[in-house]
Amino acid sequence: MVKLTPNASYSLAITLCYPNQPGRLAEITSAIAQAEGSLGDIAVQEQTRHLMQRQLIVDAYSHEHGEAILKALRSLSEVTILEATDRTLELHRGGKLHMHSRLPINSQSDLAMAYTPGVGRICRAIAQHPDEVFSFTIKGNTVGVVTDGSAVLGLGNLGAAGALPVMEGKAILFKEFADLDAFPICLDTQNIEDIISTVKHIAPVFGGINLEDISAPRCFEIERRLREELAIPVFHDDQHGTAIVVTAALDNALSLVKKALAEIKIVINGAGAAGIAIGRLLKSAGAKPDQIVLCDSQGIITQSRTDLNPEKQEFALPQSGSLADAMKRADVFIGVSLPGIVTPEMVSAMAKDPIVMAMSNPIPEIQPELIADQVAVCATGRSDYSNQINNVLAFPGVFRGALNCRARTITSRMCLEAASAIASLIPAQELTPNYIIPSVFDQRVVTAVAQAVEETARQEGILH
Amino acid sequence: MVKLTPNASYSLAITLCYPNQPGRLAEITSAIAQAEGSLGDIAVQEQTRHLMQRQLIVDAYSHEHGEAILKALRSLSEVTILEATDRTLELHRGGKLHMHSRLPINSQSDLAMAYTPGVGRICRAIAQHPDEVFSFTIKGNTVGVVTDGSAVLGLGNLGAAGALPVMEGKAILFKEFADLDAFPICLDTQNIEDIISTVKHIAPVFGGINLEDISAPRCFEIERRLREELAIPVFHDDQHGTAIVVTAALDNALSLVKKALAEIKIVINGAGAAGIAIGRLLKSAGAKPDQIVLCDSQGIITQSRTDLNPEKQEFALPQSGSLADAMKRADVFIGVSLPGIVTPEMVSAMAKDPIVMAMSNPIPEIQPELIADQVAVCATGRSDYSNQINNVLAFPGVFRGALNCRARTITSRMCLEAASAIASLIPAQELTPNYIIPSVFDQRVVTAVAQAVEETARQEGILH
Repeated sequence: MVKLTPNASYSLAITLCYPNQPGRLAEITSAIAQAEGSLGDIAVQEQTRHLMQRQLIVDAYSHEHGEAILKALRSLSEVTILEATDRTLELHRGGKLHMHSRLPINSQSDLAMAYTPGVGRICRAIAQHPDEVFSFTIKGNTVGVVTDGSAVLGLGNLGAAGALPVMEGKAILFKEFADLDAFPICLDTQNIEDIISTVKHIAPVFGGINLEDISAPRCFEIERRLREELAIPVFHDDQHGTAIVVTAALDNALSLVKKALAEIKIVINGAGAAGIAIGRLLKSAGAKPDQIVLCDSQGIITQSRTDLNPEKQEFALPQSGSLADAMKRADVFIGVSLPGIVTPEMVSAMAKDPIVMAMSNPIPEIQPELIADQVAVCATGRSDYSNQINNVLAFPGVFRGALNCRARTITSRMCLEAASAIASLIPAQELTPNYIIPSVFDQRVVTAVAQAVEETARQEGILH
Repeated sequence: MVKLTPNASYSLAITLCYPNQPGRLAEITSAIAQAEGSLGDIAVQEQTRHLMQRQLIVDAYSHEHGEAILKALRSLSEVTILEATDRTLELHRGGKLHMHSRLPINSQSDLAMAYTPGVGRICRAIAQHPDEVFSFTIKGNTVGVVTDGSAVLGLGNLGAAGALPVMEGKAILFKEFADLDAFPICLDTQNIEDIISTVKHIAPVFGGINLEDISAPRCFEIERRLREELAIPVFHDDQHGTAIVVTAALDNALSLVKKALAEIKIVINGAGAAGIAIGRLLKSAGAKPDQIVLCDSQGIITQSRTDLNPEKQEFALPQSGSLADAMKRADVFIGVSLPGIVTPEMVSAMAKDPIVMAMSNPIPEIQPELIADQVAVCATGRSDYSNQINNVLAFPGVFRGALNCRARTITSRMCLEAASAIASLIPAQELTPNYIIPSVFDQRVVTAVAQAVEETARQEGILH
């Protein structure tokens, strides 16, 4: 229904050979434009008086679209495609994460210091003083990125191996954004007790555990139990990362429309990991429980329903109705649900200056262009619209701060302070409807979040 | 009883200030020599007409010895110790292993290719074609280094955290010697079933599992079960790594004395992980089962004993007796046991041209200098004597070869071929009693072992 923008997830490197004549490149680029490809770098590879060889980078929006672009190029006379490489696929070949030894091993004395017999001294020191493990091993800077592959991105239950590319990706984001060493753990079990016991058994190596892409409602029990039973931070990013960034964005959006969190009606559509965590964090931030209307596929989560898990029960209200009913006179719509399920009519029934955060990805609950005139602020999960709600704004700084101070856990207050830190990076005078949240490449973010988290942890006295 | 050689496991960096006068450095180095410190680099740090500041690297053989060296220096007149750092301890600070992202994340298009939405394509490809996980993730080059901390080096049961420095060390050896990415997994359980299920649950990320420092006889069942239940190589280095290198060294030693493996009597002292695996591999290599005399703390393992675990039963013989009895007329002594338990008298009772491999570490079953005149060949586990039996000769190449061809397991034949490959790096004409095994820094080793392992795996048809 909605056509996607070409983007780097389907990026081709196309090597072409064609007669070296004026106007030929124009023909080629026109063909790409007509096929709706998005042209990136163009490089000359070889050139004679008669022939030109170039490599073109072309983004598509799907595999089929990529094929269509190649077909359009093949139809040009005297143009030969020498090679067409799927750049994204090639980028992942061999994996995205490598190990790096901090110590060179070039001599017997290197071996004796780094390994036996020297390492025995470090082992004994840790056995005698357990907290030394933070100083003398990788634990103090290392995060386990753990999944069971049950809810991989929007793709569903792909299992352990199918989830590994995402967990590796997450690990490199930890490295690139927060200089944390993260390692992917993809579990070959989807049994709750097995997941909990496995994570507990492998915990000694890690300073923190980031749970990822575990389906709801299983994720709630797994996280709760691990938080109780481990003395290191356990953070389910799909819950808390999203909640932190949504809270930050909402904070700034409400400033723009001059409304207070305690006085507004909020609709959250989607009662999975993200929806529940957003609702909980907004309550901690001061939203009125009876003004948070949580909806799932059956509409408003009402107390009369008998199919509710404990997390949904937390939000159950006396009233019932459809999502459309819920949105009437709502100040804020937060979507963590499905593409295209919100209509312009539903938005027009909202209160004055409505705020719409439509974060279904890659296709939002409603396309921003359809409601541009109606809303005060619109945000999505996408990078090609303004106000991208992206967890990368939260999790690197949260773990950086927690590991900096050897925190034993991550509390709601730490999450709230992280949200405030993100929001406050945009001063009031710079806030606009298209700029309520910093860019993921704003280098101030990780430091600000880490500081807020670390300070809060110190105040709460939850350190090793 | 036997004094250790100063070595880099107790290495001090000592910064001294003293009058810039001729003879002063000589006084200092004499004091260190008298205190039996081993002097390494000496560097000038600052120098005026009146004062000299130098940093000296001094190896000791124990913490107390280091203190004694410092005391000797303090007693010199006009010499001030500005700083004395424990280099080995400092080397381990912050851990020895870091992650490295192969992909930079500097733009939205980097994010879109490496992470969402682009990564979703890789996930789907793997979910559809499971073996693609070897191509498009870190699995194909990644080894899990797994321990329960129950038998850390010679230090005993230090638990998970206490074992981590060794596992990190092992991981950097994998990197430095074979460019394999290895990650330490230290399990917070010593229950056999829990260990097996945890390793199975985390296996999807790994192309191979290296078990390490798990006490016998638990290690046998854990390895056997994991080998049966996982479709990736599982290799307990304390067993098979040791067995491969011993077999390689013995092969060359027997060439020197012109004896055949099938015709000799071998005593193995120590019936733990290494002893059992050495015995098994030597049998596969052609040693006669009734000519392998396995001893434990009670002497020869005899069939009349009722306390034998299944692994010891495999080697039980009709005869009984002490270690001294066993060694009479033996051609080969292999010690993987305790310091100083072999006497020169016991060696003198061995057959003509005896071969002694005394691998208790750091103090061997018998000091080589005590039997230099009696034996044809002597080997130890130490780097400061010739013929060091070091697992680093085996495990990097074994895993390199196995992962190169996506082997599903590691067989005895692969181990035997690995041993042959190591042995054959020293041509017959270069063999001497002091050179039966290549140096761990001989760069041919890993390639030779990897090739042998890979070729054998291909012949055996055990690939993914």
